[in-house]
Amino acid sequence: MISLDDIRSAARVIAPHVVRTPLLPHGSCWLKPESLQPIGAFKLRGALNALARLENRSNGVVAYSSGNHAQAVAYAARLHGVPAAIVMPSNTPEVKIEATRALGAEVFIVGITERVERAEALVAERGAALIPPFDHPDVIAGQGTIGLEILEDLPSVDAVVVPMSGGGLVSGVATAIKALRPDVRVIGAEPALAADIADSLRAGALVRWDPVERARTVADALRDEPSALTWEHISELVDDVITVTEDEILAAMAGLVRGARLVAEPSGAVSVAAQAKFGSGVAIVSGGNVDPALLARVLAA
Amino acid sequence: MISLDDIRSAARVIAPHVVRTPLLPHGSCWLKPESLQPIGAFKLRGALNALARLENRSNGVVAYSSGNHAQAVAYAARLHGVPAAIVMPSNTPEVKIEATRALGAEVFIVGITERVERAEALVAERGAALIPPFDHPDVIAGQGTIGLEILEDLPSVDAVVVPMSGGGLVSGVATAIKALRPDVRVIGAEPALAADIADSLRAGALVRWDPVERARTVADALRDEPSALTWEHISELVDDVITVTEDEILAAMAGLVRGARLVAEPSGAVSVAAQAKFGSGVAIVSGGNVDPALLARVLAA
Repeated sequence: MISLDDIRSAARVIAPHVVRTPLLPHGSCWLKPESLQPIGAFKLRGALNALARLENRSNGVVAYSSGNHAQAVAYAARLHGVPAAIVMPSNTPEVKIEATRALGAEVFIVGITERVERAEALVAERGAALIPPFDHPDVIAGQGTIGLEILEDLPSVDAVVVPMSGGGLVSGVATAIKALRPDVRVIGAEPALAADIADSLRAGALVRWDPVERARTVADALRDEPSALTWEHISELVDDVITVTEDEILAAMAGLVRGARLVAEPSGAVSVAAQAKFGSGVAIVSGGNVDPALLARVLAA
Repeated sequence: MISLDDIRSAARVIAPHVVRTPLLPHGSCWLKPESLQPIGAFKLRGALNALARLENRSNGVVAYSSGNHAQAVAYAARLHGVPAAIVMPSNTPEVKIEATRALGAEVFIVGITERVERAEALVAERGAALIPPFDHPDVIAGQGTIGLEILEDLPSVDAVVVPMSGGGLVSGVATAIKALRPDVRVIGAEPALAADIADSLRAGALVRWDPVERARTVADALRDEPSALTWEHISELVDDVITVTEDEILAAMAGLVRGARLVAEPSGAVSVAAQAKFGSGVAIVSGGNVDPALLARVLAA
């Protein structure tokens, strides 16, 4: 498991390149808007930390992702002057492919089932380094810097509500919080349609849901499942999980526009929907890369 | 004219109650998102400073406004446990009336031409203090704290782009910037449909536009005109004005959602539209209180 020192070290490495997001009051609660990072999501923290710690990055980096991790790795690679190859599934929205290319990355479009294989082939061919989306200690430590910032800015915090998918974000944040303030509750948030971690915590062991089931939720960044590494952190450090319906997710998106002037993607609003049930604490708004047409529909509803 | 010391003093007074908004990278430019303040606009800074400096506030405060100043004064008054009476014109959207009431203020709805008269009557009846929306040194000094923060966070800044209406924001910001860094350009931004300050700077004297003309722009918070006090600051400290069309304002709103994950009201996007023509610097996104239906239309376009 990662340590508080890993996270403190990550904070020093990434500080010059990330936005020090403020805490925003929101009724009786608080928001941590990671949607304001340059690529629109917290993923930049982990990618920057992982890339900075690579011993040999001269042959470039490789990532597979249809979402925010792709842009995070592309952005971090450009910052360090390193070539990035990003493998994206063929159902990736054109706008995300273009955004990744605009950051200077070489994009490979493949069938959804061939992603990992193709990424590994690129690693072998080029001698490049793979940066996984969550299953890596340096990635987890980078995400954990959010926990440090919350404790610095709000010593009276009682709980932190964190969207969960592969579990990189919650593993890092929970490590920071529990090391420094074991009394602060760490609450995971999941769509009810992709609540495999809630199931797992009840069962006391990792329960796997079929990917087709997990793919039903509108929260498209929360369709992954934990790895052995993130499950180890989650099972030890997460106090509870709150699940939310699809309607609650969309209502939270609209509420963030009206009440906090924030653009959140569905996955980023899941924590806010869960926080509304919990009633206090800091909700991490993990990302804001939403299809404008979806946001327009949510606002017009 | 106000001084740098007035602004530094304001910064100390308001710091516990405002969000220290970050600078967000945006292409080759930067954004200062005052839309993230608790009431969704920079107006909170001036209202908090003015209210804190009132010698006798036990009889409450009075303001007239249909917009962000109403909520700013209501919020500041609640924070200090002072009664607030807000006079709003009868064409104020119901959502803004409700938001002001929700902050604990007593709301008086009057005809648009009776606003000032009714506010002055309330001041006389109650022995309350009027907090004007921009024509007051303490209000201007409060807004100027934004300039201090920009210089602290980005010493390499070359220009600051500021929406202009009554001129309280630009007067305060320009005072801070020019006192500390006279080499940094202060650029005012105006809708072409309400470009009375651009006209005035060309003429070398305050040129008045008919309120009916100024009311044409979608940027509903930029329909005021400078007072003698703010004109004194503007004419001495503002380097240039960039005017923008209605289409450019709406395009900037959409661009802020897509590229910066920010909700801006039209008036808050005017500086970003002007910055796109200027090509660098920090644009102050002054507010985010937009009608969700308008934002939905802009995103669907």
